[in-house]
Amino acid sequence: MREAFTEQLDEVSDELVNMTRMVGSAMNRATHALLDADLQLAEEVIAADVAVDTLTSQVEDRCFDLIALQGPVASDLRVVIGALRIASSLERMGDLAEHVAKQARMRYPAVAVPTELRGTFAEMGGIAEAIVSETGAVISTKDVGLVTDIAQLDQQMDHFHRELFRIVLSPSWSHGVESAVDVTLLSRFYERYADHAVSVTKRVVTIVTGEPYAGVALDASA
Amino acid sequence: MREAFTEQLDEVSDELVNMTRMVGSAMNRATHALLDADLQLAEEVIAADVAVDTLTSQVEDRCFDLIALQGPVASDLRVVIGALRIASSLERMGDLAEHVAKQARMRYPAVAVPTELRGTFAEMGGIAEAIVSETGAVISTKDVGLVTDIAQLDQQMDHFHRELFRIVLSPSWSHGVESAVDVTLLSRFYERYADHAVSVTKRVVTIVTGEPYAGVALDASA
Repeated sequence: MREAFTEQLDEVSDELVNMTRMVGSAMNRATHALLDADLQLAEEVIAADVAVDTLTSQVEDRCFDLIALQGPVASDLRVVIGALRIASSLERMGDLAEHVAKQARMRYPAVAVPTELRGTFAEMGGIAEAIVSETGAVISTKDVGLVTDIAQLDQQMDHFHRELFRIVLSPSWSHGVESAVDVTLLSRFYERYADHAVSVTKRVVTIVTGEPYAGVALDASA
Repeated sequence: MREAFTEQLDEVSDELVNMTRMVGSAMNRATHALLDADLQLAEEVIAADVAVDTLTSQVEDRCFDLIALQGPVASDLRVVIGALRIASSLERMGDLAEHVAKQARMRYPAVAVPTELRGTFAEMGGIAEAIVSETGAVISTKDVGLVTDIAQLDQQMDHFHRELFRIVLSPSWSHGVESAVDVTLLSRFYERYADHAVSVTKRVVTIVTGEPYAGVALDASA
């Protein structure tokens, strides 16, 4: 019974790690689609989100069966409930990647971000890729030491997010209202993506330590 | 055992309905704070969000205990897991009300939205209030017939959201970039608020019918 539970839990964990790869790849490709005004790539990202949703449902069903059939309590139950939450956050990260791709598609054949901000969005795309990869590592290794890296990446994302606001709202902004609106929304998608990665990490910490995450590293980025 | 389970489940349901009232009141007051540039009201909404977060944790603990102590399976388990999800969505609705209040505070003593858009935001605030009230009714009565009302309200919200985009991006927009950015973000907060209400409703439908919501009424608003 116990062995079966552990085995099934490992499978759930593997599926969650798999989800981090999918939503990581989605955001990576969405960023390329955005910066290169690559319509086909944008369409691919948008179409691929169904697979993330399907995997989310599979993880949910598996967790549901685990609870119903194995009747876990205490820390075992906390792990399964935590996995449900993590799946939910990862699904949302997939949605945000899709939003970026849709924004790229909406402005095609133009590039949705002004030339001088391409570098910033490339940086944000890089941070998104790094944070989701670390998130996958936290899920698979349960190494809560990675929390510091993730908090730093989230702070970097917040920095660029604030920087973009500053640029858009500065008197020297010369790209008009539509571009300002695009940049604002896109920046928010990347920032929320990192927030969800942080939220997944907090769940893992709670599971591993048995206590709600109370450190300063992640809260500083709230 | 069975009776204890039903009783505790009723308590969870009452707490969720209570949460809809709290996040409904939060969005209602945030809208007033926004339209009247009422700093004190904005501060109150921001401060009050802690109570929503606390109640969310209480609901989560109660659901956790229910599963651990009563070992529900099948439809009973689905109800408890559903309640966890619903609490999560309602907490997020509270965050969105807080975001609106923060935007009001940021622009104080100015009003964050141009005079001619005050009416639209008042409408969106009214829809937010109506949709969260219907959502509370769905949770307490399990009357899935209310789905149609909720879907209509969500469609109205989407209509105003698109309308605001059209206005902000039209050549006649005369309020500059900062105001465009404010309106874009605020509009998105209201739209997401309604989306979460829809998502709660879908969860209730799934719980009541035992099947994922497959009707057109709510999907039309996706």
